[in-house]
Amino acid sequence: MGAEVLIVARESDRWVDAVAGLAREHFQVTVASPEASVDTSQVRILIGAPPDLRSRLAHCPKLAWIQSTWAGIDALREHMSPSLTITPLKGVFGASMSEFVLGWLLALERNIIVRAHQKHWLPEVEGNVVGKRLGIMGAGDIGSEVAHRARAFGLEVTGLNSSGEDQPGFTRCYATDARDEFACGLDYLVSILPATQATDGIVNDNLLARLAPGAIFMNVGRGNAVVEADLAAALQRGALRYAVLDVFEEEPLADDHPLWHTPGVFITSHTAAPTPDTAIPAVFARNLKQFLAGAPLKGAVDPRRGY
Amino acid sequence: MGAEVLIVARESDRWVDAVAGLAREHFQVTVASPEASVDTSQVRILIGAPPDLRSRLAHCPKLAWIQSTWAGIDALREHMSPSLTITPLKGVFGASMSEFVLGWLLALERNIIVRAHQKHWLPEVEGNVVGKRLGIMGAGDIGSEVAHRARAFGLEVTGLNSSGEDQPGFTRCYATDARDEFACGLDYLVSILPATQATDGIVNDNLLARLAPGAIFMNVGRGNAVVEADLAAALQRGALRYAVLDVFEEEPLADDHPLWHTPGVFITSHTAAPTPDTAIPAVFARNLKQFLAGAPLKGAVDPRRGY
Repeated sequence: MGAEVLIVARESDRWVDAVAGLAREHFQVTVASPEASVDTSQVRILIGAPPDLRSRLAHCPKLAWIQSTWAGIDALREHMSPSLTITPLKGVFGASMSEFVLGWLLALERNIIVRAHQKHWLPEVEGNVVGKRLGIMGAGDIGSEVAHRARAFGLEVTGLNSSGEDQPGFTRCYATDARDEFACGLDYLVSILPATQATDGIVNDNLLARLAPGAIFMNVGRGNAVVEADLAAALQRGALRYAVLDVFEEEPLADDHPLWHTPGVFITSHTAAPTPDTAIPAVFARNLKQFLAGAPLKGAVDPRRGY
Repeated sequence: MGAEVLIVARESDRWVDAVAGLAREHFQVTVASPEASVDTSQVRILIGAPPDLRSRLAHCPKLAWIQSTWAGIDALREHMSPSLTITPLKGVFGASMSEFVLGWLLALERNIIVRAHQKHWLPEVEGNVVGKRLGIMGAGDIGSEVAHRARAFGLEVTGLNSSGEDQPGFTRCYATDARDEFACGLDYLVSILPATQATDGIVNDNLLARLAPGAIFMNVGRGNAVVEADLAAALQRGALRYAVLDVFEEEPLADDHPLWHTPGVFITSHTAAPTPDTAIPAVFARNLKQFLAGAPLKGAVDPRRGY
């Protein structure tokens, strides 16, 4: 009999044994590399990184549930349907994302990147983040965790999400339609937005022009949100001081991409919030219990919203 | 008649006009540069930076109160007496100090200093601060503010102070005598200690040897706390990963000082927590009201403790 559960993973993935053990208590399980050929005619549950799963979906007629090992499931966007449950990895990225966002904001405002290489005394007073205004696009679970840390530093934090519904940690949340108002006068703009049609190119010249002069922009969501030409222009005319970019339309970002050499741009390698080793088994165990009970899975993607 | 209030300041000090205005409502006021010759025979109140005031004290027979414009009053240590009230600038440094301490910790753990100069994709997972253990030497007002922000990032924070008295934000505080136990297994050690005889050389080989392997040390208090040779040795043998030093026995740190070129050492220029422009008038106004009423001044130095 073919596998009922297919785990697609690389040899270096440390979560595989724990997840396979959990699944074997109830199902026939196969673990395969992304490139391996596998009979998927009986597969009900797929587990792995969305880009590694996409090509297999057409060959899984019995598929009921995909457990993504990533937060972002945009690679599966075209395959969403009411009969397929997709659970992104949730509730495990907030701590790391917060460290990245606050770490870079503080490093830039407190001049840490320059100071780290200085070899003589220079008692110039540095900038501060206290009292500044931070806007977070994508005010959900992760955004709330970032907002919570930012407020501890005396930042005023507002959020943007599709409904404008208030979220913990935010002074106020705005709906996507009110994003001009949301962006007005922000000292720092951070995107944690998922990749959906509604977020394509949302960070454009119109939005960037509304920020406070010398603002800092950070993208730790998905690359689709940013119109790169508009971003480069805002940096060039000094409207933006810095942009910290962790995500891109195409990853890895090519060595000859002009962003590597755009003044004011800092590039990281989709490293803002990696998956902790223990997170995938913990989330899978919780979801599996619900799945076996025929109950709804917490945090499953809503096909209408796309996230 | 000679001045009753002497303000010692530099032309660039932006707080002078506001403080002089407050004092003139009640007293004859003179504003002088640190180098100027002034008749101080009638001076009851001195306002300025401790090193600029020290040489004048012998010529102020009527002196009753010194308002320091710095948090550290170690330059006045030899002049403390029960008949002289000395008020350090308090309650205004916590925000900036917290930004500096967390900013550097995050920059080092998240590899921001290296990433800032990288020109190709490198998806290596970085370190985290969440779950690490931070020890703060000098668990008082400023320490509490640092502890509060650090806890928001999931750090466990313990403190050290002379009495071992618990302070807000700390899981536990240790008395100075129990500093070996306090230091045991700390991932990060931060000194915010004032310069007193009790803190001279307290960060020595014995203390550093108790930290977790690869710990980070930060000095944002006063330079007297650190035995520099012991610190350099701990870095050299890899017991310490990094040291971030903002304060030194002699400031400015000379251009030919070996610390500038000690691997793992980052040097800033006593810039961790500069005085905000608005803070000095606000603190002086509050203290002046008490002084005029003959009431005790909040936060005045205890001559027995030396801070």
